[in-house]
Amino acid sequence: MLQVITSISDIKNKIQTLKQNQLTIGFVPTMGALHEGHLSLVRQAKKENDQVFVSIFINPLQFGKNEDFRQYPRVFDKDCELLSSEGVDIVFNPIPAEMYPDDFCTSVIPRHLEDKLCGKSRPGHFRGVAVVVLKLFNLVKPDIAYFGQKDFQQTVVIKRIVSDLNLDVNIKILPTIRDNEGLALSSRNAYLNETEKKDALCLYSSLVKAQSMVNAGIKKAEEILLEMEKVINNCKTARIDYISIVNPETLAAVPRVRKGDVVALAVRIGKTRLIDNVIL
Amino acid sequence: MLQVITSISDIKNKIQTLKQNQLTIGFVPTMGALHEGHLSLVRQAKKENDQVFVSIFINPLQFGKNEDFRQYPRVFDKDCELLSSEGVDIVFNPIPAEMYPDDFCTSVIPRHLEDKLCGKSRPGHFRGVAVVVLKLFNLVKPDIAYFGQKDFQQTVVIKRIVSDLNLDVNIKILPTIRDNEGLALSSRNAYLNETEKKDALCLYSSLVKAQSMVNAGIKKAEEILLEMEKVINNCKTARIDYISIVNPETLAAVPRVRKGDVVALAVRIGKTRLIDNVIL
Repeated sequence: MLQVITSISDIKNKIQTLKQNQLTIGFVPTMGALHEGHLSLVRQAKKENDQVFVSIFINPLQFGKNEDFRQYPRVFDKDCELLSSEGVDIVFNPIPAEMYPDDFCTSVIPRHLEDKLCGKSRPGHFRGVAVVVLKLFNLVKPDIAYFGQKDFQQTVVIKRIVSDLNLDVNIKILPTIRDNEGLALSSRNAYLNETEKKDALCLYSSLVKAQSMVNAGIKKAEEILLEMEKVINNCKTARIDYISIVNPETLAAVPRVRKGDVVALAVRIGKTRLIDNVIL
Repeated sequence: MLQVITSISDIKNKIQTLKQNQLTIGFVPTMGALHEGHLSLVRQAKKENDQVFVSIFINPLQFGKNEDFRQYPRVFDKDCELLSSEGVDIVFNPIPAEMYPDDFCTSVIPRHLEDKLCGKSRPGHFRGVAVVVLKLFNLVKPDIAYFGQKDFQQTVVIKRIVSDLNLDVNIKILPTIRDNEGLALSSRNAYLNETEKKDALCLYSSLVKAQSMVNAGIKKAEEILLEMEKVINNCKTARIDYISIVNPETLAAVPRVRKGDVVALAVRIGKTRLIDNVIL
């Protein structure tokens, strides 16, 4: 039976009991508005752990002033139904004022990683991600935590912080889940109208183009990026935020593609900013 | 028998074994050059825990470019003898390159707290303290960690980070240990010559003056600080870095003294910067 926990003292008590009984904990941190991408993480967590925790917390610190914190979809009851049918044990839905009391003052900053790719147009975003994930890890004490490859830069930041701060949590990154036409699932896809949904396919088309060029032996990043731009600029509602081919650990742009490099992009479709990536 | 551990994998294995056996861990983080102040923490830790860990790590990140990182006293063998005779179980003496590998990039910043008092003349110091203490806590997983009141601002920063990041460690602050004449024990006292050692007594004399004024019913911070300055300026080798009466949680200067406020100061005696404080 799915149990919802909202207070920090309740989650601490629950975790303490599980740890005393030497049960392993799988953890999927989310902002809710769950889709098959989240559920793929949950299913993997079910396979690999005694207990599965999912957090639903729309973290104010990771939204910029002009971003969509207020509009972000909130469908808690529906999310709980989904998680219940997946056999999740605990939903942790913390109270914002308890997560960030008035005198809260600690920043966690992934230097060098935070100002690249999405960080350029979302200043402060990855600090917000870093601090909330660190807090959630300290509260839930998971053995394994699961994240989607779709939020590529987030996965790099989290792995870096876990390593730098010597946290005892195994981070697993699972593949991006796409709809039948290739659109990466995202809670923000709910913002798209029918025309925009079709135009949004250009993100994946451009990534497929990049992969096929690499498969054909083209290694020069500039050449690949140029062709990707063409694919995206064919869509009238699309406006490129960035396209970049980067080292998967440092996020530094690479001039020539090597196996394991990641091509990542953010594109605005109308007012909606979408991201996607593939590992080359 | 005292055991010295230097590698991160060894400390993790050791802690895992202790936790599996449900043993409690008391932890005293130090930079070595141990004195009775450190030993008072160790003795309290011995009373309250199954196992006592002491770390000796001269943390490069908490020293400024023109500070005394290179000169800082290094007497590891003598420290281990002292700790052995106190019945300490483990000395953790990590390897700098393992604590901070080349790609290390995470900053932990106690905003609002880091730019006050000592932070003004030691920019970056408390970030360095924050990140190393967080790493050590994550490695050693102590039930209780012990710090001296002498490093007052450090205790405030650490309590704040533990609270903000939801760490499960109980922080205990123990009283400053002084020599017979009142000088607060500090590893940096080793830098003082005989004349300076006498002059250094002005720090405590000024604090005693402040306490006696408060006892006599004087509440106006400005009035108290003025008298303290006079006491210190009577010493020829003394140069005030700061004197301040502050709220013990926010570190904000107070205009009128209330019970529990802290009078803190830093004074240079010759080339040596000393700090001290009392709770009013």
